[in-house]
Amino acid sequence: MSTVPGGWNWSTIPARRVGDGVMRQMVHGERVMVCRLTIAAHVTTEAHRHEHEQITMIERGRVRFLVGSEERLCGSGDVIVLPPGTWHGCTVLDEEAVLVDIFSPVREDFFEAHHS
Amino acid sequence: MSTVPGGWNWSTIPARRVGDGVMRQMVHGERVMVCRLTIAAHVTTEAHRHEHEQITMIERGRVRFLVGSEERLCGSGDVIVLPPGTWHGCTVLDEEAVLVDIFSPVREDFFEAHHS
Repeated sequence: MSTVPGGWNWSTIPARRVGDGVMRQMVHGERVMVCRLTIAAHVTTEAHRHEHEQITMIERGRVRFLVGSEERLCGSGDVIVLPPGTWHGCTVLDEEAVLVDIFSPVREDFFEAHHS
Repeated sequence: MSTVPGGWNWSTIPARRVGDGVMRQMVHGERVMVCRLTIAAHVTTEAHRHEHEQITMIERGRVRFLVGSEERLCGSGDVIVLPPGTWHGCTVLDEEAVLVDIFSPVREDFFEAHHS
């Protein structure tokens, strides 16, 4: 079904390359940002932390997550809550993965990357 | 893939019946709440508003959304941003639908319904 005026659909929201094998789409309001990441097989995102609360949902693929000092093997339907300041990163296993990262507050640092 | 300790998976997160034909699952942090709603065909959720910002993603099904005074016909992959105070409701069309509602701040009013 096509998107109607005023709405968005992930199939048509522009994707921005934000790293090797990492494409990011985003939608946001004033308090919440939703980023949909499509990550190629065998890609590792560098571990990092930020003061934004993050909830990640795995839409498809298998991903090894680093959360603090522990590793979690995650797949479709998994949901991860990362409190502010949590050290985290991920490695996508043998097939492309799609993750939905939800942030609050909005990741203003992402605007520049998408608009530049 | 099964859920690992410390994570959640939508396949095992308890669902609570919160209305005729409406089941709600939820995961939350301090700032963000994610509710996954499974809504039977032909069910209408009463139009309402709240001061929480809401972003809704349609996982599957077809849904007619009321947003303010306009109707939007939505389907899989659609994303709707509802600023605080926006009047909204929905009617699920001819098959069961799954929606992911993201709120900030957390809907504390939902805790009682899930814990009672």
